[in-house]
Amino acid sequence: MKTETLRYRLLAAQLDMAKREHRAVVLVLSGHVASYMQPMLNLLNHWLENRRTEVHALEPSHEEAKRPALWRYWRRIPARGTTGIFVHGWYADALFARAERRIGAGAFDDRLAMIRDFEAELAAENVALVKIWLDIDRQTQGKRLAAMLEDPARAWQLDSGDWQRHLQHPLIEALGTPLRETTEAEWAPWHCIRGDDPDDLVHQVAERLLETATRPPVDPAAPRAGGRLAPAARQAPSVREFPPEDPAAERPDKADYHRRLVAQQARLSRNSREAASRGIPVVLVFEGHDAAGKGGSIHRVTSALEARRYRVHSIAAPSDEERLHPWAWRFWRRLPADGRFALFDRSWYGRVLVERVEGFATPAQWRRAYGEIRHFEQRLLEHGTVLGKFFLSISKDEQLKRFEARANTPRKQHKLTEEDWRNRARWEDYEEAIDEMFAQTHRPHAPWSLIACDDKRQARLEVIEGINALLERRLDSDT
Amino acid sequence: MKTETLRYRLLAAQLDMAKREHRAVVLVLSGHVASYMQPMLNLLNHWLENRRTEVHALEPSHEEAKRPALWRYWRRIPARGTTGIFVHGWYADALFARAERRIGAGAFDDRLAMIRDFEAELAAENVALVKIWLDIDRQTQGKRLAAMLEDPARAWQLDSGDWQRHLQHPLIEALGTPLRETTEAEWAPWHCIRGDDPDDLVHQVAERLLETATRPPVDPAAPRAGGRLAPAARQAPSVREFPPEDPAAERPDKADYHRRLVAQQARLSRNSREAASRGIPVVLVFEGHDAAGKGGSIHRVTSALEARRYRVHSIAAPSDEERLHPWAWRFWRRLPADGRFALFDRSWYGRVLVERVEGFATPAQWRRAYGEIRHFEQRLLEHGTVLGKFFLSISKDEQLKRFEARANTPRKQHKLTEEDWRNRARWEDYEEAIDEMFAQTHRPHAPWSLIACDDKRQARLEVIEGINALLERRLDSDT
Repeated sequence: MKTETLRYRLLAAQLDMAKREHRAVVLVLSGHVASYMQPMLNLLNHWLENRRTEVHALEPSHEEAKRPALWRYWRRIPARGTTGIFVHGWYADALFARAERRIGAGAFDDRLAMIRDFEAELAAENVALVKIWLDIDRQTQGKRLAAMLEDPARAWQLDSGDWQRHLQHPLIEALGTPLRETTEAEWAPWHCIRGDDPDDLVHQVAERLLETATRPPVDPAAPRAGGRLAPAARQAPSVREFPPEDPAAERPDKADYHRRLVAQQARLSRNSREAASRGIPVVLVFEGHDAAGKGGSIHRVTSALEARRYRVHSIAAPSDEERLHPWAWRFWRRLPADGRFALFDRSWYGRVLVERVEGFATPAQWRRAYGEIRHFEQRLLEHGTVLGKFFLSISKDEQLKRFEARANTPRKQHKLTEEDWRNRARWEDYEEAIDEMFAQTHRPHAPWSLIACDDKRQARLEVIEGINALLERRLDSDT
Repeated sequence: MKTETLRYRLLAAQLDMAKREHRAVVLVLSGHVASYMQPMLNLLNHWLENRRTEVHALEPSHEEAKRPALWRYWRRIPARGTTGIFVHGWYADALFARAERRIGAGAFDDRLAMIRDFEAELAAENVALVKIWLDIDRQTQGKRLAAMLEDPARAWQLDSGDWQRHLQHPLIEALGTPLRETTEAEWAPWHCIRGDDPDDLVHQVAERLLETATRPPVDPAAPRAGGRLAPAARQAPSVREFPPEDPAAERPDKADYHRRLVAQQARLSRNSREAASRGIPVVLVFEGHDAAGKGGSIHRVTSALEARRYRVHSIAAPSDEERLHPWAWRFWRRLPADGRFALFDRSWYGRVLVERVEGFATPAQWRRAYGEIRHFEQRLLEHGTVLGKFFLSISKDEQLKRFEARANTPRKQHKLTEEDWRNRARWEDYEEAIDEMFAQTHRPHAPWSLIACDDKRQARLEVIEGINALLERRLDSDT
């Protein structure tokens, strides 16, 4: 294709994408970039619609270093209608970490597998990916770098990192093959490109970009027969098989409750300070039936935390910035820094609960979400996050009582909405969704705690005891 | 007011605010908080609608320490429809810095003046402010702290900071009077509160909060006679008095241009690395007539920068998250970290240009914006930012030629929109707005550079030379 035609079509594709906001494009540039990058990025910047393109070649900041590794890529995933260009991007953490022997061969494979999952998730959410491996032999690269150094018009384009990459050429070459093979996918293809001058290179890259921006999207979930479910977890809890509470059981009276609550809060306060001083992040998920007492339980937990160390995220409908990103983006952006608590009053599980039952997500989307949620939580655990997941359950009778009490208490009326009654009418649909959620996401290192909440006091004690137990297990094992 | 009634009304006010999204509420808690804070925050959390309230008591993070001091408050200003509670908030940087002798008496006054401006800006943008000074005498505070320490149910609520504040009691007391007097305003009133127990305190705070959430907003600009303008800056440039370019003047030919451009880019590359190594942030503003060549000039600048060190922000219509915040919020959120470049392709000056001419801002709003912009840029300069402001100007004839050329070049057609023709039809209105912008915002330390752009090559050289001169002036003065 002639350059002028190519430029025109590429711009037209970008503008069409901007107008329709139906997809984002991600271009990853990796491989032997040393002698190519600066002139190529300049030309690409010149060709593309700047207002709709962003280049990401940043080193991790402090805030990023304190979050799971993918956080810094998630926060930069382009909104639909825009293009993001990543220099090495998430491959840097595998490629150079291995080239520099900072990780072993097994960890290298793990990271590639993680990248494969990550890219499949993006693709399923209408992020079209194209990955360029810049190819050059070592000798030619050396000559080009030397020529650049001699030329006052280009010498300043080089920095010490480029020479380091030149020295690493054989390593990058050797790692490149397994890297590309493992992460090759129909929805995230690699293209090896070799070019003699920047114009030629940009032309080739632009062709791939145009193809990506205009081809029908490849849905990674499609070949998997509509998102086959994983085998149900062993010993997953079940709201449908939850034994009814024994009305004869001894329930804590008010004085007893206060005594035990204060003791647990003091324990939580100590544990949370210790976690903060060791830089351990804590993520607590609260899901449950309407009126089961999520808010009250969260309040008893936060009462024991220092205000500067926690945030409560109440998850409702996404904002428009959030709607333009993959669904998990709004949870990634809320992850706590090391040493901090994040409490989610409703969470990513909305994808397989309310979004499923109300039809906001298609069956393909919510079925796929189980795997995405497992990966997401896996990322948190790998980073060292303490993860607690609490499902607060009440009986249908008890819910009715609480709805009626809310309707009759002026300052509680706002808590009772049309939606609550609608959800209640779909009680059985929710029970099915909840139990499938347990079966799919109750995992040895990320188990659910199902809490019976017909007795509020007992439930609050159980939640806070559960959090203390989680924290202490981690704090003791780290010592 | 009875507690139950108060709680109900407060909730109702929060829900009304959430529904109407017409204002945000900011509550600042300062003064002698040591023995009050934890129990009071717990109770407040319990009383308020959690999904619409956020408590901010965080210590600055690394990303925050690398930005102007107000950045970390701007990023947390609540969206309209929500409430933000700040423990000390922006007062900490004045009060404790002075109590601990980290700043002198003059700097303390400067910070209070800055806070006054800041709060007036928030108030003018429908952020209702209420500030509580928690009062207690030293002896009583000491007794309360000692009693807490003795009580196992409350001892964990204390940390070493609380004891430090107790030791500082006389200093906080002495600084509190001028602090409150200087920052007292009808739109941001102080209330001194003293309470014997948390319930009583929360009751008093909640009453102030209710009053704030429901009273008619106080517009700080109102008494100033609709936003009186500052005297015009001396030697401010003027597009209307701009001498026409001399067609006989020698213009750089292509070869000459390239030679000079590359030399300037090499110089910029060196300067930018030096600025990065010294942690100097750089903010460059590009405003100008449509088709004057902003994009092309920015491209020549970024070609000399390392991709990981800069971001280009193209400013178009705000997102809905941005619309729910004060207008300047979306510029604050884009400020670069120390050592990084941010280039603004259009900027905060849109407030007094397009928003003024198109009527998106009321006269009171855009008149007020001049002062807000001066303050904003003052904050950048105080932080050590290198600030460059370039206005790219073309003649009306030259613009027509370029519009026609765009209409005839397929890959440039998208750059020409209805809006461009509409703006052109209002050429004189824009000229008036531009010249007033210069008169109001051309300041000794934040001057405008007015660049004649009928000759693109000459213009690009002038821009990049201008940036080099700015950087070198700073780099030389710092040595």
